[in-house]
Amino acid sequence: MKLTKSLIAGAALTALPTLALAQDAAPGFDEIGPYIMTTLLFCMAGFLVFFMAAGFAMLEGGLVRSKNVTMQMTKNIGLFSIAAIMYWLVGFNTMYPGDFNGYFALGGQTILDDVGVTADKAALDYASVASDFFFQLVFVAATASIVSGALAERIKLWPFLIFVVVLTGLMYPISGSWKWGGGWLDAAGFQDFAGSTVVHSVGGWAALAGAIVLGPRLGKYKDGKVNPMPGSNLALATLGTFILWLGWFGFNGGSQLAMGTVGDVSDVSRIFANTNMAAAAGAVTALILTQVLYKKPDLTMVLNGALAGLVSITAEPLAPTLFGALWIGAIGGVIVVFAVPFLDKLKIDDVVGAIPVHLFAGIWGTIAVVFYNSDASLGTQITGIIAYGAFTFVASLVLWFILKAVMGIRVGEEEEIAGLDMSEMGMEAYPDFSKG
Amino acid sequence: MKLTKSLIAGAALTALPTLALAQDAAPGFDEIGPYIMTTLLFCMAGFLVFFMAAGFAMLEGGLVRSKNVTMQMTKNIGLFSIAAIMYWLVGFNTMYPGDFNGYFALGGQTILDDVGVTADKAALDYASVASDFFFQLVFVAATASIVSGALAERIKLWPFLIFVVVLTGLMYPISGSWKWGGGWLDAAGFQDFAGSTVVHSVGGWAALAGAIVLGPRLGKYKDGKVNPMPGSNLALATLGTFILWLGWFGFNGGSQLAMGTVGDVSDVSRIFANTNMAAAAGAVTALILTQVLYKKPDLTMVLNGALAGLVSITAEPLAPTLFGALWIGAIGGVIVVFAVPFLDKLKIDDVVGAIPVHLFAGIWGTIAVVFYNSDASLGTQITGIIAYGAFTFVASLVLWFILKAVMGIRVGEEEEIAGLDMSEMGMEAYPDFSKG
Amino acid sequence: MKLTKSLIAGAALTALPTLALAQDAAPGFDEIGPYIMTTLLFCMAGFLVFFMAAGFAMLEGGLVRSKNVTMQMTKNIGLFSIAAIMYWLVGFNTMYPGDFNGYFALGGQTILDDVGVTADKAALDYASVASDFFFQLVFVAATASIVSGALAERIKLWPFLIFVVVLTGLMYPISGSWKWGGGWLDAAGFQDFAGSTVVHSVGGWAALAGAIVLGPRLGKYKDGKVNPMPGSNLALATLGTFILWLGWFGFNGGSQLAMGTVGDVSDVSRIFANTNMAAAAGAVTALILTQVLYKKPDLTMVLNGALAGLVSITAEPLAPTLFGALWIGAIGGVIVVFAVPFLDKLKIDDVVGAIPVHLFAGIWGTIAVVFYNSDASLGTQITGIIAYGAFTFVASLVLWFILKAVMGIRVGEEEEIAGLDMSEMGMEAYPDFSKG
Repeated sequence: MKLTKSLIAGAALTALPTLALAQDAAPGFDEIGPYIMTTLLFCMAGFLVFFMAAGFAMLEGGLVRSKNVTMQMTKNIGLFSIAAIMYWLVGFNTMYPGDFNGYFALGGQTILDDVGVTADKAALDYASVASDFFFQLVFVAATASIVSGALAERIKLWPFLIFVVVLTGLMYPISGSWKWGGGWLDAAGFQDFAGSTVVHSVGGWAALAGAIVLGPRLGKYKDGKVNPMPGSNLALATLGTFILWLGWFGFNGGSQLAMGTVGDVSDVSRIFANTNMAAAAGAVTALILTQVLYKKPDLTMVLNGALAGLVSITAEPLAPTLFGALWIGAIGGVIVVFAVPFLDKLKIDDVVGAIPVHLFAGIWGTIAVVFYNSDASLGTQITGIIAYGAFTFVASLVLWFILKAVMGIRVGEEEEIAGLDMSEMGMEAYPDFSKG
Repeated sequence: MKLTKSLIAGAALTALPTLALAQDAAPGFDEIGPYIMTTLLFCMAGFLVFFMAAGFAMLEGGLVRSKNVTMQMTKNIGLFSIAAIMYWLVGFNTMYPGDFNGYFALGGQTILDDVGVTADKAALDYASVASDFFFQLVFVAATASIVSGALAERIKLWPFLIFVVVLTGLMYPISGSWKWGGGWLDAAGFQDFAGSTVVHSVGGWAALAGAIVLGPRLGKYKDGKVNPMPGSNLALATLGTFILWLGWFGFNGGSQLAMGTVGDVSDVSRIFANTNMAAAAGAVTALILTQVLYKKPDLTMVLNGALAGLVSITAEPLAPTLFGALWIGAIGGVIVVFAVPFLDKLKIDDVVGAIPVHLFAGIWGTIAVVFYNSDASLGTQITGIIAYGAFTFVASLVLWFILKAVMGIRVGEEEEIAGLDMSEMGMEAYPDFSKG
Repeated sequence: MKLTKSLIAGAALTALPTLALAQDAAPGFDEIGPYIMTTLLFCMAGFLVFFMAAGFAMLEGGLVRSKNVTMQMTKNIGLFSIAAIMYWLVGFNTMYPGDFNGYFALGGQTILDDVGVTADKAALDYASVASDFFFQLVFVAATASIVSGALAERIKLWPFLIFVVVLTGLMYPISGSWKWGGGWLDAAGFQDFAGSTVVHSVGGWAALAGAIVLGPRLGKYKDGKVNPMPGSNLALATLGTFILWLGWFGFNGGSQLAMGTVGDVSDVSRIFANTNMAAAAGAVTALILTQVLYKKPDLTMVLNGALAGLVSITAEPLAPTLFGALWIGAIGGVIVVFAVPFLDKLKIDDVVGAIPVHLFAGIWGTIAVVFYNSDASLGTQITGIIAYGAFTFVASLVLWFILKAVMGIRVGEEEEIAGLDMSEMGMEAYPDFSKG
């Protein structure tokens, strides 16, 4: 409804019922302010994290070869859309089941608050259900995007999307409930502020299982040599990285889960500063390290270095000082530079470097919590890492094998060589440009 | 003015006059909070909707052939800039004329509030004039962007921009005043929360009139066959879609027009969740439907499916449940998949699918209001749809014919074959890449 | 920490300590509201300005030739990351040293507020240190991005990054302290609201010095003729411009430095409206002017016209009326159209037009303050312009000469002809596309 100017001009102030109601009740800022500001935080952080879907799409679209870009775009917009539906249908209430056994409780559809709730709601809840749902939903999509990048250039569309259905509807929500739903790992004292483990390593484990079952791209490992298959559009990959970096302010900042007090809003801003520092440190470290190791700086490593810095600080973006964020992020950058060739040695073909960035740096970030957060213990952190890893890796492995057996998960050799865009989609991403 | 750190360090608290003033007056949150939060909502939603200009540019730049990209970029940045000037000069006050006859009142320049208004203003108005103007301005630009896409690859630059002058200065504001300015359709009970009809179908009608007068691209319909002319950059088109999706949170969320109460901020977040769901449903529907119909999923249909879902929910993003948003958006996806070939059958050449997305799904969304909003009646909704359609289509048709007669609206055959970038602009968008 | 749903479902309201604390203290909105809203403003404006790093990268990546895109991306993500580290290490506290001699005081590391500060902090400060630091940090990165564009396609990576270290750690903070740190120019009454001089012309002067020392690209000026070297991706350049335009709402709006009163939030929105108008006016002016002068509209001029409009309004985005913003921005557009060929006449090779946009329009914007802000005097404005120019240009010149002498700043002829991507980086940005 929009009657803006006419209301102002017509002096029709009586036509502002909501405002009038608020004035009747006259609640103080301390009564309704936190609810309003936290709901706003979820909306803002939510749209920032939503935009990470575009970031993943651009990063991955830039790092695959031009003959697979249409497929990559389809997978990325498809997975986000499926995540949105599955998380509504079952995911959100499975992840946040309320009082439960601490391991698993299947939830039903998400039901939003009624339209136009009254101020009393602010005394009962800390934010609107819709804002909370929206914020949590964009997180699960990030997990699925991680898988999409690692398995690019050879996986079929539909088995991938079926995997996403299960990942976003069940696997992620079940393991998520252990910590964020108040389950057994939360009771045990496991710390993961914004999801180095709960989100990023879960995506990484699912990707790792998929990469193993799927096998490397044709010709990637040949005669004991690693055959580089350079990404087709590094400008796009850089854009994707910047978009992800932007989205991470929402990812980590929104995970404060409150913005309506002086302390909370200050903490949110502290998280912004630390998040930015960790990304910068990861990028600079990868830049220097690749110059030293290879005599030439490697842009794709710098991009992944920034992302690894971001993943590393995600488990504890609040407690560290700026210097803490710097060194935690820098180690993330180091991890990426060494992990990418390490995976190649194992002949695990991760097209965009998603496993080093999200799994390895995610593990590191979860461990690094112990340096600044006195509530964390190394043992519990490792317990959490192992629990998430074992569950997600095994469940993913089983699911990938079932999909392989039932419908096949990999395109044929000819199709792979021709590129998925022509063979599977019948539509090139860049039809006007001749191929080099 | 920036004296941040020095003020803090120098304990010069007396140098904070605005803050001091506020403390003198000591108004409660209920007195000034809604004004502050709603003004903030308009700023935030406004910058999100502003960014849709980039989204349209990327979507359209990705869906035209590479020889017409420079022209498309010029048209898109040009139209936004012209809209900004025309809406200031005459549009805003024509659309929101205050007390008027309900059909038309020509407004003059927009005059902003003075710098540094006092807290009294909060009692009189519900948000600052500048924030309201900015928010409404970015909407009108969206309307013009819709036209730009449909008429791509053959229209001359200047007649198009002259059309934009009239569309954004007069046509959109006049018809807009009927509903959002408090005119006759508002009095009649017509419901259109964020503009499925007022914004999107208006753009669609103007595009339809243009497409008819302009005729299809050379070679598009030949010997009874439809000749596909694939877009040159589907990564860019996907980015554009994600940017539009992002902007839509501002488009629909901001249309709540209030954020300073528990009820309003909860409603804004409910709109976010519903908007996202409708887009996801539209995308998934188009994905499945193109697989079933054509045996191959069609990325451009998936992108347009998401956008059609968004347009469909725009007339009523608040009242539906999440399930309501799902099926309303899904029908939007169905509409796109069938409407694109239907337009081709009529030999109406809409380069990017703007008419299916914005006009057809806009009509659907306006009708769908009746399912969840008891204030809406089917008769009045159809009256509104017809009124907007008749006025915009006829006025556009007349204007396109005048432009055609006076200066010509279409480039010559040779120019069209060579591409508008070389012939009209003398500048290629991708000069380094050889054409396939 | 995320326990959202479980808290709600479990009625565990006692587990909301922060909220409870706030209710104990029960401060009114006038006591804590301004602090909360201003900290939020810095976070929001900060993430918008952060995103300008992506805008600069896309603009510059689109305007260089395809053989230099990987290098340009590396420089842009590298410079942002270095700026983030240097501004923490020394820059922020050098720029805002508190009580100092007005010319220079070397600051140390930035120390954030403790986690979870109490409401008392709101009475002492006007926003959190982290939010202020983050907001100021993204500004310095913009300055460095300006240099990156002008010197593209021939400068070596590492000398450029070393320049960035000094620029962001010392040069920009020192000169910045003169005005925004409360130094001698601030005392003299120099006015620069958001940085036409302090940020943009400083970047422009550093770029000018670099362009002179570096010399033009091979073949750019030959036999008395200017050899056009068209940008490789105008869609990307357009995207970059839109992203910068978006970021500018944060750049100028955030510089209000307060959002917690009716007057402040209204002023922020007024700045949004004026900023948008100046950009639109710059774009339209460049569009019309290039049509008149060259008979063909020039997209790159339109993009730079929009940016020049933005730079022009940056010194005083609050005081002008919308009409004021229009003509101030329009003159920015005129400046760009004439300054680009003027620099070519001087054989100063500025690859992306950064010097016309940021230096020339920056000077114009700083002068234009006198038309709407009665606190500004022409003499003082010119004093400021000269002081910033002399310091930055001389210091940059010295630094560029030292870098040239010590390590060389320019790649070899063969490397430049081959393109920096293959010769310096060993990685093409678009390896799949054959070159025209």
